[in-house]
Amino acid sequence: MRVGLLGCGAVGGALLKLLHSDAELITARCGLRFEVTRVAVRNLAKDRGVDLAEGVLTHDAAAVATDPDVDVVVELIGGTEPARGLVSAALSAGKPVVTGNKELLANFGRELSDLASAHGVDLLYEAAVGGGIPLLRPLRESLAGERIHRVLGIVNGTTNYILSRMTEEGASYAEALAEAQSLGYAEGDPTADVEGFDAAAKAAILATIAFGSEVMAGDVYREGISAVTADDIEVAGRLGYVVKLLAVAESEGGTAGAAVGVRVHPAMVPKSHPLASVRGSFNAVFIEGEAVGELMLYGRGAGGMPSASAVLGDLIDAAHNLRAGSTSPTPHRPRAVMVPIDELTTQYYLNVDVLDRPGVLAAVAEVFGENRVSIRSMEQAGLGDDARLIFITHTAQESDVQATVTGLHQLGAVKRVGSLLRVVGGE
Amino acid sequence: MRVGLLGCGAVGGALLKLLHSDAELITARCGLRFEVTRVAVRNLAKDRGVDLAEGVLTHDAAAVATDPDVDVVVELIGGTEPARGLVSAALSAGKPVVTGNKELLANFGRELSDLASAHGVDLLYEAAVGGGIPLLRPLRESLAGERIHRVLGIVNGTTNYILSRMTEEGASYAEALAEAQSLGYAEGDPTADVEGFDAAAKAAILATIAFGSEVMAGDVYREGISAVTADDIEVAGRLGYVVKLLAVAESEGGTAGAAVGVRVHPAMVPKSHPLASVRGSFNAVFIEGEAVGELMLYGRGAGGMPSASAVLGDLIDAAHNLRAGSTSPTPHRPRAVMVPIDELTTQYYLNVDVLDRPGVLAAVAEVFGENRVSIRSMEQAGLGDDARLIFITHTAQESDVQATVTGLHQLGAVKRVGSLLRVVGGE
Repeated sequence: MRVGLLGCGAVGGALLKLLHSDAELITARCGLRFEVTRVAVRNLAKDRGVDLAEGVLTHDAAAVATDPDVDVVVELIGGTEPARGLVSAALSAGKPVVTGNKELLANFGRELSDLASAHGVDLLYEAAVGGGIPLLRPLRESLAGERIHRVLGIVNGTTNYILSRMTEEGASYAEALAEAQSLGYAEGDPTADVEGFDAAAKAAILATIAFGSEVMAGDVYREGISAVTADDIEVAGRLGYVVKLLAVAESEGGTAGAAVGVRVHPAMVPKSHPLASVRGSFNAVFIEGEAVGELMLYGRGAGGMPSASAVLGDLIDAAHNLRAGSTSPTPHRPRAVMVPIDELTTQYYLNVDVLDRPGVLAAVAEVFGENRVSIRSMEQAGLGDDARLIFITHTAQESDVQATVTGLHQLGAVKRVGSLLRVVGGE
Repeated sequence: MRVGLLGCGAVGGALLKLLHSDAELITARCGLRFEVTRVAVRNLAKDRGVDLAEGVLTHDAAAVATDPDVDVVVELIGGTEPARGLVSAALSAGKPVVTGNKELLANFGRELSDLASAHGVDLLYEAAVGGGIPLLRPLRESLAGERIHRVLGIVNGTTNYILSRMTEEGASYAEALAEAQSLGYAEGDPTADVEGFDAAAKAAILATIAFGSEVMAGDVYREGISAVTADDIEVAGRLGYVVKLLAVAESEGGTAGAAVGVRVHPAMVPKSHPLASVRGSFNAVFIEGEAVGELMLYGRGAGGMPSASAVLGDLIDAAHNLRAGSTSPTPHRPRAVMVPIDELTTQYYLNVDVLDRPGVLAAVAEVFGENRVSIRSMEQAGLGDDARLIFITHTAQESDVQATVTGLHQLGAVKRVGSLLRVVGGE
């Protein structure tokens, strides 16, 4: 089975090594022998760590995508262009494609899936979400008949590392980010990770597969972690919660036609929840199904080798299907009907700095009440002449909570409305 | 797609309900429509909770297995006979079979897989291990190219429930067992669960798929939990461990020819290990792979609905393959070369009651030293005129530790050698 590789960075390089070191094992288990016949790279001179025959490396990615000496194409360039054109060309040439490209899938997944279906070949992308964790295949195949109500994911290792350091060492956001950057866990411009763009693309892909209707990156409500303070995390800990950047996908009914809500934001998760113990750069996805109950899939969400492992699993599947003349089932997925964030109902954590004077608490509480937000617990801490009020609400509607925040800003005694965090996995 | 169901207990009944309630969803996602045309049961009069046409229910399981009006057979009778004969008959008649029968697979898996291959049909059994958790498919497909070194599983909910109660409430084994029985989590005769037979069958199936060589139930070294005391659990907790009944499968190299060790026994697991927080009747399997690193798959390991969810996933896969004229990859798996338990190397926990007299500790320590067992930590607790010595060893070989136990029994000052627990996931 001849493989054409587009891009040879950390994941591509690891894949080359795996195909070399595990060749015998793959043949024994699957009856397949892979040969990497073309590799499109930017730098022809760089050592790839394995012997490649003369002429395998090339600058010409477009030629690799449609090369007659390539049976299966692996796209590991990332980003939407030129990946989109290359993947389209490969599929159109009747070649199965394996990719780990979350941006591509979260923006052009339907177009590419339709193209794959039209040409009767596979488009597989396990590595796009959760690195090495078997996630999309179990969702797509093992749970094909399952009515899934909710998927909660820790799908970005950088932010989980930062929040874990803040939790375990009381570090500030800036300190934890700097540490993540010095260790190579965060990029120089960390926006894609810390502002939730990476997690939002993954949330879109998860929701699409879990619910059978197409969710795109732009459909996902998104907040990052840059506003989370050491104080929020300390208070959360005291109240029995940890703060995690969660990708949350919910369906009203779990069927293809049902409206879905998909969002990425920092959330307070009860310490007793299995997701609470997912620390450092690990990823995990927690699934709530009608029949199967609660599932969690946990592992290394990034890194060359774990992601290459996922690519290899897909490659074997694609090659097996190509040989058998079949493809993985590709259901038609209608465009999802999205529930706007305003209609979300969950619990909330909110802190408010007020003047420490008689009557202020009553005025604050009245704003909650006027907006139909019921308070589950409140605590007050002194802050010099001021006081900080910390609220956890009962389940309330997002629009009502936002109206509460607006109302609080209008009170003269309120000096600052601090963090608003959604509580997930509680009531 | 016409389904013949053999057995209609908790899982079969749940499957009937799922096929009914999720019919639309299955058609939308997979383009398949299932009809249950025959159901073999013992009691024709019992209400199955869904409408079945006249003549669907029958006593004649053999007729269902080969009925021309049945495309796929689901075997949920359990046990080795008559299940073995029925599954063989169905496969020989060219019908794919889905089963959740761990005893059958752990004893006759190879014979039945070969039969399935010979007839070009699927034999799928996701529900046999870990109930609803997608486990065998990810191992078989997602990790098809992965060199797996170790699989650690909590695969028996009954014993995990008992040990969790002992840990969380200081209950004795007898109390926790009685509670599990009163809640229906343990059977009247709990032997299969508490003595590790159930876990050993599952360990054999996991090892077979993870390492690509056939391990049978009888190959698995097995100890149950009935000798674990509340005191062991209390001491373990003080030392930073929890006690779990683990299924452990290890391979020297991860390839099909490599020797494998497979064992089921109570083990001390560090509290920081992801398996330590798997509580109550939940199951989880922790996988250590060369490229993928650490993975954990967690969920409901038993129960009608979770298991039916796994059966349904297999049923959809089998039906899809039947329609496409293909089958799931079925590698040839040679008989495994087993590493005897004597050659196991791990850490050990051991307690010894001795006379509290000068020179006794030296004599005890000498027995360890003579047998090449290095002590990592020791603590002594008073017991009236006696003392209890609690040891954690460095990594040592099982045969040396067993020789140490024999040597200790021969010391006059040793009154009792208590529990010997292996420590897993530590050094």
